[in-house]
Amino acid sequence: MTPVIEIIIVGNEILSGRTRDLNARYMIDALGKHGYSVSRVTVVGDVMDELTGVFRDVATRADVGLVSGGLGPTSDDMTVDALACAFDRELETDKTVLAHIERIFRKRGRTMSESNRKQALVPVGGDSIGNPIGTAPGVRMKDGRCTFYLMPGVPFELEGMFVRSVLPELTTSYTAAPVERTELCVTGISESEVYDRISHLPGARDALAYYPGPHGIELAIKTTPDSPMAAGQLKKEISDILGDVVFAEEKKTLEESVAELLFETGLTVSVAESCTGGLIASRLTDVAGSSRYLLAGVVAYANEAKRDLLGVDMSLIERNGAVSAPVAAAMAEGIRTKTGADIGISTTGIAGPTGGTPEKPVGLMFTAISTQSGTETKKLQFVEDRLINKMRMSQSVLNELRLHIQRRR
Amino acid sequence: MTPVIEIIIVGNEILSGRTRDLNARYMIDALGKHGYSVSRVTVVGDVMDELTGVFRDVATRADVGLVSGGLGPTSDDMTVDALACAFDRELETDKTVLAHIERIFRKRGRTMSESNRKQALVPVGGDSIGNPIGTAPGVRMKDGRCTFYLMPGVPFELEGMFVRSVLPELTTSYTAAPVERTELCVTGISESEVYDRISHLPGARDALAYYPGPHGIELAIKTTPDSPMAAGQLKKEISDILGDVVFAEEKKTLEESVAELLFETGLTVSVAESCTGGLIASRLTDVAGSSRYLLAGVVAYANEAKRDLLGVDMSLIERNGAVSAPVAAAMAEGIRTKTGADIGISTTGIAGPTGGTPEKPVGLMFTAISTQSGTETKKLQFVEDRLINKMRMSQSVLNELRLHIQRRR
Repeated sequence: MTPVIEIIIVGNEILSGRTRDLNARYMIDALGKHGYSVSRVTVVGDVMDELTGVFRDVATRADVGLVSGGLGPTSDDMTVDALACAFDRELETDKTVLAHIERIFRKRGRTMSESNRKQALVPVGGDSIGNPIGTAPGVRMKDGRCTFYLMPGVPFELEGMFVRSVLPELTTSYTAAPVERTELCVTGISESEVYDRISHLPGARDALAYYPGPHGIELAIKTTPDSPMAAGQLKKEISDILGDVVFAEEKKTLEESVAELLFETGLTVSVAESCTGGLIASRLTDVAGSSRYLLAGVVAYANEAKRDLLGVDMSLIERNGAVSAPVAAAMAEGIRTKTGADIGISTTGIAGPTGGTPEKPVGLMFTAISTQSGTETKKLQFVEDRLINKMRMSQSVLNELRLHIQRRR
Repeated sequence: MTPVIEIIIVGNEILSGRTRDLNARYMIDALGKHGYSVSRVTVVGDVMDELTGVFRDVATRADVGLVSGGLGPTSDDMTVDALACAFDRELETDKTVLAHIERIFRKRGRTMSESNRKQALVPVGGDSIGNPIGTAPGVRMKDGRCTFYLMPGVPFELEGMFVRSVLPELTTSYTAAPVERTELCVTGISESEVYDRISHLPGARDALAYYPGPHGIELAIKTTPDSPMAAGQLKKEISDILGDVVFAEEKKTLEESVAELLFETGLTVSVAESCTGGLIASRLTDVAGSSRYLLAGVVAYANEAKRDLLGVDMSLIERNGAVSAPVAAAMAEGIRTKTGADIGISTTGIAGPTGGTPEKPVGLMFTAISTQSGTETKKLQFVEDRLINKMRMSQSVLNELRLHIQRRR
């Protein structure tokens, strides 16, 4: 049986923003590796009524309730109390746990306080889960179909308990879903355009998840044995339909795809950037081994820098303006010939928020790709704020570079 | 009236562990700054029955339901449908929104697809919230005491909509707890070191939250009328103790702090980067108006580029190696004199994962700051992976630049 699993994170400190919860994410990842998925996460405060309500609700929906937090000795720790209360159970002292806590305190040379005795309480019908690291033991309790596992909120204590005690119990009690997963990465196309072009494929609507970001869209494909097509086959069909907007057939950044093409062809690149301010060079050097293909980058913001570092003619800038196709072309040619690279690429534009005119609005940008056989320019118009315009432009230019190298191969 | 606020995060991708939710945390923080707290967060999948159930439950408990995700154009986006269904409403097309989406597609020169029309649907009795960044508008709908705000799942789209539309509406409709909040941003110091140096201050333990990131640590200070010291006073005392590791007395990036100092002093900068690959230039140009202080950047990965673009002597590289203090100094001097900037800064190092030797291990980096009155170099050793090493180095170098300008003032 595939279990319905819910996670409950208890703690005022998370709802007030004082602490970041790491436990939900940790458990989701660990479960995912074993083929289990989580159907809901609830983050709730240390408030008796709220907690009892959440426990009762979860018991109606789930087979497994994984709970983190509120097992400490102080008065604001009430998770065990609330669990007992939610299902009308009494609390009793677990003598083994009490002895364990006493031993820890003796070892540390401290006297055990009355409030620590509280940590040995367990609802009738439940039992304790050993804590190899801290004083607070965990609690396991079943009500109806749902088994609750109460674990400490401190991440490394939870992780220890989850891996050693809870996860082994889940894998022996429940089967995991046999799913097949794969990915495709695309850029230069909108989420809805992808959807419109591929949603007629059998099973595509259910199998696909879209993760759009400034670096393109990741298409996650997930199928089960009941799906009309297996994930691998579906990926092939989608890839054929979408054509060259697909830049990777696994989870990968665009700069990694470009780097692979450059490694494969042995071509070298130099970059002359105005509006992207070094971002393209920085992305190209995010890949290990980039010194093999990136010869140099120049960030030429000032016109004088375009002249002195790239050899752009001042009269060309005066005639066309710095933001123009001829200047983009001269920048790309300049960086290529100055550095002896096979390919020169350039950007010039108005990142914003100021500097726009009616003829040349904010977001207008030009790029050029220059090789020994000639120089091509392209005009682009972006509509967002400075940082996003920079990011989108770097994405477009790296994509042009990818397509250029693919055509040359 | 202090409102009961709940957050609902919608998305299979979060429950399956494919994406990390950033929106709950963002809204908790933003609300906290205005004195509001959140009573529950529910993360639920794109499953119709689950969604309608959660919406109905939240409406019985909360005044405000903040919902993120599932507003896209594809079939797995069903949040608006589910909201309408939960409260037995029909859906109708919002003509203004439809016109807005059409306009965006025209501007981008793309044809609007049928699935995008879905994004203009709103439940009867509800209305749309403008999206300044993407195509998906938000939805506002009240049922009984509870007002739901449906926002996109993409973090920067949610943030734009939350700050511009949702938060202002909440602050006019509801009273907040009387808290005083302020921030300090520090860099070049660890979280535990900050804690050890300031935790003796009365009330500091309760008042402070630490948000560490690759760009330094943000210290959020929050006090109530009952606290031993008001937030502003506490900030002053913390700032005095910590000294010049504090780079901002409000939430700000390090590059924004550096930009302010450059605007104020009128100084200009040029950057010569090897191991940081353009990241420092890119961060400096993330600030609007950066063309006033950044003259040029050079990314000189190859030794020939260091010679040809920066005038570094080949024999200096041969004698000391490219990763050395003398080469860092020559790079900073070279970029400064070539571009006529007041300040030249440089980086050279081994970002990793390969290229290290016993004498020069991965993560070894040098920076230099050059002015007319001389050049100073600094050696740094980082221990993480390539991307984090690049990021930490850019942070260290920008911080050196900040301290340099502060000393000159």
